[in-house]
Amino acid sequence: MTDYTKTALDLAQEAMYRTSPNPRVGCVLVNNAGTIIGQGSTQRAGGAHAEVMALRDAEQRGNSPQGATAYVTLEPCSHHGRTGPCCDALIQAGITKVIASIADPNPAVAGNGFARLRAAGIAVDVGQGAEASRELNLGFFSRMIRKKPWLRMKAAASLDGVTALTNGASQWITGPAARADGHAWRARACAVLTGIGTVLADNPRLDVRDVQTDRQPALVLVDSALAVPLDALLFAAKRPVYIYSAVAHEEKRRALEALGAIVITMPNNVGKVDLPAMVQDLGRREINELHVEAGYKLNGSLLREGLVDELLVYLAPKLIGEGMGMAQMTPLAALSEAHALSFHSVDRIGEDLRILARLQGRDRF
Amino acid sequence: MTDYTKTALDLAQEAMYRTSPNPRVGCVLVNNAGTIIGQGSTQRAGGAHAEVMALRDAEQRGNSPQGATAYVTLEPCSHHGRTGPCCDALIQAGITKVIASIADPNPAVAGNGFARLRAAGIAVDVGQGAEASRELNLGFFSRMIRKKPWLRMKAAASLDGVTALTNGASQWITGPAARADGHAWRARACAVLTGIGTVLADNPRLDVRDVQTDRQPALVLVDSALAVPLDALLFAAKRPVYIYSAVAHEEKRRALEALGAIVITMPNNVGKVDLPAMVQDLGRREINELHVEAGYKLNGSLLREGLVDELLVYLAPKLIGEGMGMAQMTPLAALSEAHALSFHSVDRIGEDLRILARLQGRDRF
Repeated sequence: MTDYTKTALDLAQEAMYRTSPNPRVGCVLVNNAGTIIGQGSTQRAGGAHAEVMALRDAEQRGNSPQGATAYVTLEPCSHHGRTGPCCDALIQAGITKVIASIADPNPAVAGNGFARLRAAGIAVDVGQGAEASRELNLGFFSRMIRKKPWLRMKAAASLDGVTALTNGASQWITGPAARADGHAWRARACAVLTGIGTVLADNPRLDVRDVQTDRQPALVLVDSALAVPLDALLFAAKRPVYIYSAVAHEEKRRALEALGAIVITMPNNVGKVDLPAMVQDLGRREINELHVEAGYKLNGSLLREGLVDELLVYLAPKLIGEGMGMAQMTPLAALSEAHALSFHSVDRIGEDLRILARLQGRDRF
Repeated sequence: MTDYTKTALDLAQEAMYRTSPNPRVGCVLVNNAGTIIGQGSTQRAGGAHAEVMALRDAEQRGNSPQGATAYVTLEPCSHHGRTGPCCDALIQAGITKVIASIADPNPAVAGNGFARLRAAGIAVDVGQGAEASRELNLGFFSRMIRKKPWLRMKAAASLDGVTALTNGASQWITGPAARADGHAWRARACAVLTGIGTVLADNPRLDVRDVQTDRQPALVLVDSALAVPLDALLFAAKRPVYIYSAVAHEEKRRALEALGAIVITMPNNVGKVDLPAMVQDLGRREINELHVEAGYKLNGSLLREGLVDELLVYLAPKLIGEGMGMAQMTPLAALSEAHALSFHSVDRIGEDLRILARLQGRDRF
C-alpha cells in the first residue's frame, strides 16, 4: 500500500462519526512530482464527497489538479444522489489516474464509476487498501449487499462474564476509559438500539456525550407493549427515535409521535416485535451500523434469531461470581452448539479489556 | 538494562522448567574487551548454579575469567546448600565485578552474598533487570518472603465466562494451542493442585505432556474424605503426590501410601481440608509456584479463603450462555465487593485469548 493510500484511509477514518448513512471516504490528489496538492474526506450527508473536498482543497491552495493522480478509498460515485457525481468532477478537473481502494457496493454505482472514468481516458487501478476501506465501512457494505445493518452487540462484564449482580446492580462494572470508549462506538453507529427492559430499569439517555460529535445516532427501542414512559430520558436528546412495538395502541402511539418518535408496529406470531423484520426495516431506513446496548433478554433474542454480527465486549478486572450473563440462552446439549466467534481485536482500555469478536464467518459477504 | 543482563535473563528463562525448588538464574561472564567468555544457567536442584555453569563454560572454551565481570540475575549464594557457595567460586576465579539483578530473598543469603563479594574486593552493582528477575521467580520470592507458594488458578472459559455446560461437558472449550500452553504453565510450577470433584468427574492425569520437560511437577489433591479411587489416572505419572484430607482413614491411607502418595490429614473445624494451613504446608515442602486446575467449588473456596494470587484464564471465542462459572461465590450485595484484579498480560494463543490477571496488590510483598 502506498503512503498516499494510507493518508487517504486516515482521512476516511477522520470522517468516522460524520458521514452516516454515507460511507467514510478519503481522497488525496498527488501531482507528477509526488507532492500532495489537495486532500479531503466525506462531509455530512448532503455535503461534499471526499473527491470534491480534495479538489476544493487543491484550488484553495492554488494547485492545479490537471494531470494529477487521485487516491481515493472508494469508487467515485457516478450517480446524482444528494450531490453531483464525483466522477464528473474528477474528469472535469483533468485528473489522469485514479487509484481506488475498492468498488462501491451501492448498486447505483457498482463499477459504473470506474467505467465512466475509463471511458473518459482516465487510468484506473483498484485494490490498494481494499480490506481497510471495507472494514471502515462494514455497515455500509452490509446495508448495500445484505440489505440490513451490521449489528454490533455491546456488553460490559467482569472477567468471569457477569454483566450485573443478582440484585441488578451494574453501574459501573467497567472504568471511565472503557465507558468513554463505548461512547466512541455509539458515535460511529447510525443507530443505538435498546430494549424496554433497560429503559425501565436504568432510564438511560443512550446518546453520545463522552466524545465530540456533530451528529447524534438515531435511537431504536424494542418495546412490544409500548410501555415506554413519556418522560423517559431517551426522549431528551435531539435525534430520530424509532419505537418498534407489537401492539397497535393508538393513544400511546399518538403521544409518542407528539414527542417526535416514529412508532412502527411489527409483531411476530407470538406477540413480540419481529426482530428480523425490524432489522431489515432499519436497513431500509439507511442504518449502516446498528449498535446494541440492551439487557440479557433482548441480547439473547437477537442472538437466537441470528441477527448479531459481532460483540463489543469490555471485560473489567473483577471476579463477581453470581449474576446476569451477557445473553439469555437455553442450556446447550453439546459444546459444538455454542455460538462460534473469532476474536477480531483485543485492546486495553484503561484498566479494562476491549474485545471485538465476530460471529464466525459473518463478515464474509 | 545492558545487553549482558538481557542475555543473563534469557538464560534464566531457559531454566524455567528445570530448577524447582531453586530460583531460575542466568549468568554471563564478560571480559574487559566486552566479549562474553562464558555463560550458564541453574541446573536441576542439586546440580550446579548459574555462576558455576558460566565459569565451567569459560574454562571449556579456554577463556580465563581473571578480571572478568559477572552479570547474574540473582545474588550469588553464600551458604553451603546442596552445592558449594557461588560467591567462593567467583572470588576464586578472579572475577572483579558483579552486576546482579536483585538480592536473594532467601534468609540464608539475603545480602550475605554481596557482603562476601565486597569483602573480597569485588565491586558489586545491584538492580539491573530486578523486576524481570523477580517476575521469573515470583514463586520463589513468595515462598522465601511470605512463607507460602504463589498460587495461580487456571481456568478455561467461553468469552461469556462459562467453564462447563449445565450437563458438565467441558472438553474442550479451548483449542489445542491453548491446551498446550496450559501444559507449559504446569511445567514451570513446582506442583499442580486439583480437587476430588475434578478427579471423580474427569479422572485427569494432570501431568505435563505437551511440552518437553525432564521434571514432572508434584501433584496435590484436596480430598477431604479420602475418596480418590486407587486406580485414578493421577497415580500413573512418576512424581510426588500429596493428598490432603480431613479424615484419618488408616486403611485408605495405607493403600494410598502403597501407591507412593503422601497423605496429610489437615482438617478445619467444619470437617473439610484446612486450605490456608495446606498452602502454608506446601510452602514448607518447597513449593514455589502452585498451579491450580480445579473445579468451580474448590476454586471458590480458594478465593474465599484469600489464597489465590493470580488467575490464568483462557477465553475461547464462543458464547455458551448457561453453565458453570469460573468459581463458586456467594452473590454480592454491591459491585465494590467483587474480587479486584489487575490485568498483567493478554496474549492470543491460537484462536483463544490468554489473560493473566492478578488479585490487586497481591504481587507487592
